[in-house]
Amino acid sequence: MGGNTLGKIFKITSFGESHGDVIGIIIDGIPAGLEIKLELIQKELNKRKPGQSKISTSRNEPDIVKILSGVFKNKTTGAPICLIIKNKDTKSSKYEKYKNLLRPSHVDYSALKRYGGNSDYRGSGRFSGRITAGIVMAGAIAKLILKEFKIDIFAYTKSIGDIVDNQNYNLDTLYEIEKQREMSIVRCLDANKSKNMIEVIENAKKENDSVGGIIKCIVKNVPPGLGSPIFEGLESNLSKAIFSIGSIKGIEFGAGFNSTKMKGSQHNDPWIIKKGKIETVKNDSGGIIGGISIGMPIEFQIAVKPTASIGQEQKTVDINKLEESVLTLTGRHDPCIVPRAVIVVEAMTAIVILDQLLYEGKIPLIINSKEKN
Amino acid sequence: MGGNTLGKIFKITSFGESHGDVIGIIIDGIPAGLEIKLELIQKELNKRKPGQSKISTSRNEPDIVKILSGVFKNKTTGAPICLIIKNKDTKSSKYEKYKNLLRPSHVDYSALKRYGGNSDYRGSGRFSGRITAGIVMAGAIAKLILKEFKIDIFAYTKSIGDIVDNQNYNLDTLYEIEKQREMSIVRCLDANKSKNMIEVIENAKKENDSVGGIIKCIVKNVPPGLGSPIFEGLESNLSKAIFSIGSIKGIEFGAGFNSTKMKGSQHNDPWIIKKGKIETVKNDSGGIIGGISIGMPIEFQIAVKPTASIGQEQKTVDINKLEESVLTLTGRHDPCIVPRAVIVVEAMTAIVILDQLLYEGKIPLIINSKEKN
Amino acid sequence: MGGNTLGKIFKITSFGESHGDVIGIIIDGIPAGLEIKLELIQKELNKRKPGQSKISTSRNEPDIVKILSGVFKNKTTGAPICLIIKNKDTKSSKYEKYKNLLRPSHVDYSALKRYGGNSDYRGSGRFSGRITAGIVMAGAIAKLILKEFKIDIFAYTKSIGDIVDNQNYNLDTLYEIEKQREMSIVRCLDANKSKNMIEVIENAKKENDSVGGIIKCIVKNVPPGLGSPIFEGLESNLSKAIFSIGSIKGIEFGAGFNSTKMKGSQHNDPWIIKKGKIETVKNDSGGIIGGISIGMPIEFQIAVKPTASIGQEQKTVDINKLEESVLTLTGRHDPCIVPRAVIVVEAMTAIVILDQLLYEGKIPLIINSKEKN
Amino acid sequence: MGGNTLGKIFKITSFGESHGDVIGIIIDGIPAGLEIKLELIQKELNKRKPGQSKISTSRNEPDIVKILSGVFKNKTTGAPICLIIKNKDTKSSKYEKYKNLLRPSHVDYSALKRYGGNSDYRGSGRFSGRITAGIVMAGAIAKLILKEFKIDIFAYTKSIGDIVDNQNYNLDTLYEIEKQREMSIVRCLDANKSKNMIEVIENAKKENDSVGGIIKCIVKNVPPGLGSPIFEGLESNLSKAIFSIGSIKGIEFGAGFNSTKMKGSQHNDPWIIKKGKIETVKNDSGGIIGGISIGMPIEFQIAVKPTASIGQEQKTVDINKLEESVLTLTGRHDPCIVPRAVIVVEAMTAIVILDQLLYEGKIPLIINSKEKN
Repeated sequence: MGGNTLGKIFKITSFGESHGDVIGIIIDGIPAGLEIKLELIQKELNKRKPGQSKISTSRNEPDIVKILSGVFKNKTTGAPICLIIKNKDTKSSKYEKYKNLLRPSHVDYSALKRYGGNSDYRGSGRFSGRITAGIVMAGAIAKLILKEFKIDIFAYTKSIGDIVDNQNYNLDTLYEIEKQREMSIVRCLDANKSKNMIEVIENAKKENDSVGGIIKCIVKNVPPGLGSPIFEGLESNLSKAIFSIGSIKGIEFGAGFNSTKMKGSQHNDPWIIKKGKIETVKNDSGGIIGGISIGMPIEFQIAVKPTASIGQEQKTVDINKLEESVLTLTGRHDPCIVPRAVIVVEAMTAIVILDQLLYEGKIPLIINSKEKN
Repeated sequence: MGGNTLGKIFKITSFGESHGDVIGIIIDGIPAGLEIKLELIQKELNKRKPGQSKISTSRNEPDIVKILSGVFKNKTTGAPICLIIKNKDTKSSKYEKYKNLLRPSHVDYSALKRYGGNSDYRGSGRFSGRITAGIVMAGAIAKLILKEFKIDIFAYTKSIGDIVDNQNYNLDTLYEIEKQREMSIVRCLDANKSKNMIEVIENAKKENDSVGGIIKCIVKNVPPGLGSPIFEGLESNLSKAIFSIGSIKGIEFGAGFNSTKMKGSQHNDPWIIKKGKIETVKNDSGGIIGGISIGMPIEFQIAVKPTASIGQEQKTVDINKLEESVLTLTGRHDPCIVPRAVIVVEAMTAIVILDQLLYEGKIPLIINSKEKN
Repeated sequence: MGGNTLGKIFKITSFGESHGDVIGIIIDGIPAGLEIKLELIQKELNKRKPGQSKISTSRNEPDIVKILSGVFKNKTTGAPICLIIKNKDTKSSKYEKYKNLLRPSHVDYSALKRYGGNSDYRGSGRFSGRITAGIVMAGAIAKLILKEFKIDIFAYTKSIGDIVDNQNYNLDTLYEIEKQREMSIVRCLDANKSKNMIEVIENAKKENDSVGGIIKCIVKNVPPGLGSPIFEGLESNLSKAIFSIGSIKGIEFGAGFNSTKMKGSQHNDPWIIKKGKIETVKNDSGGIIGGISIGMPIEFQIAVKPTASIGQEQKTVDINKLEESVLTLTGRHDPCIVPRAVIVVEAMTAIVILDQLLYEGKIPLIINSKEKN
Repeated sequence: MGGNTLGKIFKITSFGESHGDVIGIIIDGIPAGLEIKLELIQKELNKRKPGQSKISTSRNEPDIVKILSGVFKNKTTGAPICLIIKNKDTKSSKYEKYKNLLRPSHVDYSALKRYGGNSDYRGSGRFSGRITAGIVMAGAIAKLILKEFKIDIFAYTKSIGDIVDNQNYNLDTLYEIEKQREMSIVRCLDANKSKNMIEVIENAKKENDSVGGIIKCIVKNVPPGLGSPIFEGLESNLSKAIFSIGSIKGIEFGAGFNSTKMKGSQHNDPWIIKKGKIETVKNDSGGIIGGISIGMPIEFQIAVKPTASIGQEQKTVDINKLEESVLTLTGRHDPCIVPRAVIVVEAMTAIVILDQLLYEGKIPLIINSKEKN
């Protein structure tokens, strides 16, 4: 049981509930000597925060990060860092009335069976998307370290419902692309597709319905040779972490499911020498072969299901009376969580890549140290 | 580094190389008192074994299981079980000539960077598909225990290249279906599709090419409430394990990537009462919500890429001379590994589900015991 | 690195610094449905709290426990519990002046080498005895669960300096004994010895010196058959946890070091039947054989070194100038930490025993549940 | 349950039984590129091997090491190494007659309760001292790596029964000392004490009795700053591993239990500068402060109880009839296991220190590599 700690060296421990006092995260195993820029953590949190746009939930939370431990004179000490945000805009009463009605495709029944009816059900408690704020805070710190080693992580919305952006973006210009992405409230990189995606979400919202989509994530400059097969390969560790984000139902690396329709002669990525460096002509392997990085960008795609909470009347069961019933949810929900999940995927990816680098001894315990490490 | 042990309670440790003495697996954390039927382990091994049919590699290995420890008077003692098979038909010399040519989409380059040129390259060494024989042995034992708790696991070939079998099979008749599956050398459940798939593979083989496909896996009778989110949920642990099998490039649960094109109102699985039991009308969630089982069958699909080893001439790099070159592989390879991977997927799934049950205290340490546990 | 999480199922993660905002602990893997009595946690904290008596440090901390997560309607939900106390009486300035002088037998040099000079040195930061308040909070919760299974843990002061209490106490009357212990400010069970011990401590204090001692710990009613050798045996797991408490330099089980002077015929504990139950005549094994409990009380002794912080002038090195120097510490220290460490030892022992019970599936995931587990 | 894997990076997994086919160990997480000298592993095994002298068991085992995986062209590949020795001289029949009689201070009862009567009882099965041969093989490889980093480990017999060798040996001459030690069949460094110790053991043997003793272990040249408190400190990890060796009942670091009778002013180790290096005048801390190495030798002492198997008649219980009975063991046992345990302690210490160095990124993944790591 348990299961709220992830990682082998860079270990994160998640705690808090949607309508409890706080959402928090502990980071242990962080190298000492890293300068912590609070405003960068806050910036990441702001991107995930509810109520950013007309297509997101109306829950109003400032989500101001507070550091409880592990930072001294603005630097990491090597001790565990505890980061929290407070829960302020909690309207718990409405959850009382649904208490006995199992929300379709929601955790009510699984949680009942798992925790014997003791779960905090207010705002979905521990299963709320709000828990991912902890991931975003830890990810922000992981990104700070990765940046020192020139490793960049970038995710964006590839599809919402039927609207798919199939373009291949120039990875050399990630930073400009990020600005472009943040100008779109759906985090799509193409202005026209973006408009269409927003429309799809707004239509779903009007119909008290919801939609899903696909997130693409790219990691640049991971050195070749990272990964510890057979069980600690990169695909294994990335997928484990990514599936811990709610509503994710699929992941594929490189050509992924499309590869199943390709011949080996099409799918294989020929090796070449480019500016004295060994590369592949294309990247259908997604930068990972045999669980180990090859130095090409790591690329993967993630399926996000439509939000389970919808305002339409749904058939369900009253768990108390043990009889069939109907349920119409009111309340504040994102009609599509893809745009906010983009930020969570980036954070989780940063955490996994950093942990793997530390696990394989590729990042020292002390950063920028005068002491020999 | 390392990374050859998987599991929290039912821990497997893999060892051995393709052309070394043995392929082996250690199982630790196994309950005491389980009767071990060697012939059942052998039966599973035989299904994975090379040279079963005209579409599989011609390497000739008897793959006879031998138990080195942990079983006494035909029962598990609670001590670690070591299982091995010997490597007999090794033709290592041919690997010498490719030693400096990076095989496209193969582990040569990643392994070079990871292990500094010390890897055993004969028959792909530690990266050989042959390593999965260890998984199959451990999986056979996991299945024996799961059977005591009425949990069944079944996988089959859903597609090879463009040939897709989209039927939904009646899960109540899994055992009959297994016989049906074993009559098809591609492990497809539909006789016509099976014929087409074989054709696709044979054509690829003729062209010195290869093909991939999709494996579907179903787990029946997992009790509701299994899974320990946020990081030890079922999707997390299944995906981590499945991606440790070579050539897997994608996984999706329930409706998976299709869910991204559905509305919430379509995707949500309404709760109903059926014969006094709570179920869902359909299973787009794949039996898992919030990382926890809901009592419905667990269903997932796996993308297997086309075999990287092909007989066509391919562009590549000579790592010694650091110049571009070409490579034509000769040797014995499966033009499509999907049919044999079906057995490995079943085994790996059994291992993960059993570990989760033990981790959550749902299976006792002593089976069929007179001693109170 | 890292290293602030302990346990396999009942996992605790420690955070906080002596002069930071808080001292905290996360408990993950706790069964759901346990009623949390805040006053019992507070009661344990009060026993450890500074400033309890004339022989303890004068730092004045109320140490009021606050629950940040994991408890709902007064019961555990199965989610991680975060518990904190605040740091109030921090006088950090005095630590500035010793900053470059390595305190003898203190962590200054090891921490410098480990964390590159980034540690929070105020009040010894992460190495302060104050960190153990987190252990005590987690231990209080572990004790609540163990109590449901009738398992009792009791520790007391066996020696301070040369004053040794060699009596064997009647374990059937542990609760009365606890009252007796709490009447002694050194937590000794014998009134006369207690007086002598206090004298020894007061003398040391007068001389700006410090003393150590031995703590004895007993665990009653652990069922026989607990322990998972070879590496997860009870002695292994208890010793690992106990040595994570500062100032502990030795541990022995049963006859311990004395057993090295005994013959096998003296040391062996003969088996007998007592009221239909299998027991041993005596308990030189300390209740553990081969790493596994035998049903007899688990008994061990712990060596606590004299407090490193003393007010006498000591020879040392100035780490900045790299030259020899002298140091006279002022400030608030316990001249003997044994009496307060007794409470920490009890807490740590409770945590280990509970984790082992959960790991071996002997405690359900849901306590007092209407749901079938 | 389980519990047969130890370590975070350098992971060892033990398997095999006293009268089974083999005793084996898997080592995972070993750096690639290390030259393996089989004769050095064999040399360590020979030191532990039974039947070395008149004071050891008469079981006759050649204990020839065989490598099953992980080594290619005489070097480690980075893949898991499997090492085995065969069991040859097994006389299992005699164990049948004691099957129902609980041997005093032996694992019979704890194993019965733990494994429900399924254990392999022949030659104590999994609880045999013979299991430590696996530790010795893994330790030999750990020592090979540590030697590359100039870290030396040395253990010797400090006492047998009442005969104590209290001398402090010059650590600079460890290698000469090792030769000296190997000239003594009790592994004592003092020739006269050695004679007395042998006498004590021979007398015990004549009386069908057994004796215990104390082993001292020293680790030289561990760099300062190794250790990850609070839970992964050196004392925690060393003690956990050491207690997994059978018959160990106590451990103390530096002054250990003696420190409880010292004043702080006596016990504290003043810092000095010696040849430009920071050291302490004496080493009552045993080279570890706050769980972290200080660069001084790591020193600890271990209490080994007298062998539980003795030839005298002992009172016990017949577990089948549930009545009291007597037992006279015949068979081959060491009247004192201290001399052979010295080698096991060295091996286990090497394993722990190496794992900690790898865990803290202080040893690269590839040794002597042309590839940049």
